[in-house]
Amino acid sequence: MNLVQTLYYLDLLGTVVFAMTGLLAASRKQLDLFGAIVIAMVTAVGGGTLRDLILDQPVFWVEHNIYIYVVVFSTLFLFFYARIKEIPVKLLLYLDALGLAVFSVIGAQKAMALGLSDPIIIMTGVMTGVVGGVIRDVLMGEVPLIFRKEIYATASFIGISLLLVLVHLNLPVDLAVILSVMVIFSLRIWAILFNIGLPVFQPINSQD
Amino acid sequence: MNLVQTLYYLDLLGTVVFAMTGLLAASRKQLDLFGAIVIAMVTAVGGGTLRDLILDQPVFWVEHNIYIYVVVFSTLFLFFYARIKEIPVKLLLYLDALGLAVFSVIGAQKAMALGLSDPIIIMTGVMTGVVGGVIRDVLMGEVPLIFRKEIYATASFIGISLLLVLVHLNLPVDLAVILSVMVIFSLRIWAILFNIGLPVFQPINSQD
Amino acid sequence: MNLVQTLYYLDLLGTVVFAMTGLLAASRKQLDLFGAIVIAMVTAVGGGTLRDLILDQPVFWVEHNIYIYVVVFSTLFLFFYARIKEIPVKLLLYLDALGLAVFSVIGAQKAMALGLSDPIIIMTGVMTGVVGGVIRDVLMGEVPLIFRKEIYATASFIGISLLLVLVHLNLPVDLAVILSVMVIFSLRIWAILFNIGLPVFQPINSQD
Repeated sequence: MNLVQTLYYLDLLGTVVFAMTGLLAASRKQLDLFGAIVIAMVTAVGGGTLRDLILDQPVFWVEHNIYIYVVVFSTLFLFFYARIKEIPVKLLLYLDALGLAVFSVIGAQKAMALGLSDPIIIMTGVMTGVVGGVIRDVLMGEVPLIFRKEIYATASFIGISLLLVLVHLNLPVDLAVILSVMVIFSLRIWAILFNIGLPVFQPINSQD
Repeated sequence: MNLVQTLYYLDLLGTVVFAMTGLLAASRKQLDLFGAIVIAMVTAVGGGTLRDLILDQPVFWVEHNIYIYVVVFSTLFLFFYARIKEIPVKLLLYLDALGLAVFSVIGAQKAMALGLSDPIIIMTGVMTGVVGGVIRDVLMGEVPLIFRKEIYATASFIGISLLLVLVHLNLPVDLAVILSVMVIFSLRIWAILFNIGLPVFQPINSQD
Repeated sequence: MNLVQTLYYLDLLGTVVFAMTGLLAASRKQLDLFGAIVIAMVTAVGGGTLRDLILDQPVFWVEHNIYIYVVVFSTLFLFFYARIKEIPVKLLLYLDALGLAVFSVIGAQKAMALGLSDPIIIMTGVMTGVVGGVIRDVLMGEVPLIFRKEIYATASFIGISLLLVLVHLNLPVDLAVILSVMVIFSLRIWAILFNIGLPVFQPINSQD
């Protein structure tokens, strides 16, 4: 399996898991089926859409409508599956970690392929990874996951930086991609399990 | 009156009614005149702007600044009219239904004219119809109308699907457009009046 | 110093001050370092990004990655500075006023350089000035500054209109730019200090 295929399947996987996090978030707010599909769609395609607009590339789901089908069918499946079988809500956090990892690396890869500089690659990757979830949380009226106390965008940032280092070291891109995905996913899971955070910004004294 | 003209006047009508829903939402939060114009503008042009960006078309109001004048003058008119005459707030929901219907069909039409596939046409239409109102509600700190329990995006989805079917059946496009607008508007009004909703997504049991 | 340079340095200045308002807003919510950088970034580049997308221009920070470095380093500096020295939170409002003034005029300038019409120039300028702060406030779960009662977008509107008038009067563009920045900044500071607002939209009577 070559890089293009690897990225393609990872992308579809990320689409499915982010759609599921959207659906699970919708379920907490008791949205109806169509509202849930809308949230699942926004979560799954939001980050990549912004990435493509900013990089001035054709929006991926306009070019390849398989992404739309993937979101709709995985949402419908989970919608009905959930009526006969229990879904642990904690799963949302793990799926979100996987989506974050996959989309970050794919976003970075897309900017690399355009020959952009390292800071732009990092911005693009982090954006692709986090924006869908941020829109999901804002629409659901919740504080975005990214701004709660555990490591989140930081994991994406570290993983993409690793990808850049590995590629500059001439590691096969396939391997670098897989390693970076695993690092982001592991960092995020580790942060969730052990409640790890970065230091908080706190001015020593502030007068209002 | 041919199709281009019909769509043009419908588009201006949709712009006026969405601007009014923005203004009425702003009035509940006691925004000042300029803040109200900003909300009216975002509500009226938000959906179409995102549509044009995603379809990689020139943004409609940059090409034709009449839309900006229409928003500003209808907002000013309503602003001063409201000081001498009573405006029923319930009107917001009916105007919103009309805006949803008109913008959904126009968005779908624009994607059809570009020869895009059916799922993209549906996505584009729904997005054009709902995004302005979603941004309005998010900015006002309210749960977006689209995610409350009555049929909303669903009406847009059904109307656009009908449009696709009628066009595939070689009905005159003019007629298909008018029928679809009427179906979306009626569905939404019917849902408001009788409080109709779709089944809610509810996992049978979820452990936190 | 010619116009291009003046605008360039003003733009970097606006980037720094908006990044700081983002960081200060993040501090109130106790975000971690990376979350704070994300908010600072969104606040500083959000308005210009939307402007470039809508005007169909290359996004400025993709072309010139100095903006990314400026945000990251000024955020890091303030982050550590705040641990040893007091930062008055009220500063947020003054910095925000300066960012509003600078970005509004730069946004308007960019649309003028493309030969667009006056209403589009005003829309573009106001958007460049206010969108970053609006996203910052929405992400932090607060009512956007722009919709609170003092003059905000109005100041941007007045300053850009002045810029248009001065340029039509053949005043040197440099001077017109500096004057407009000063007018927007002064209007906003004056509104903060004396709590000045526009009339509020209030229907005389509304039935629910």
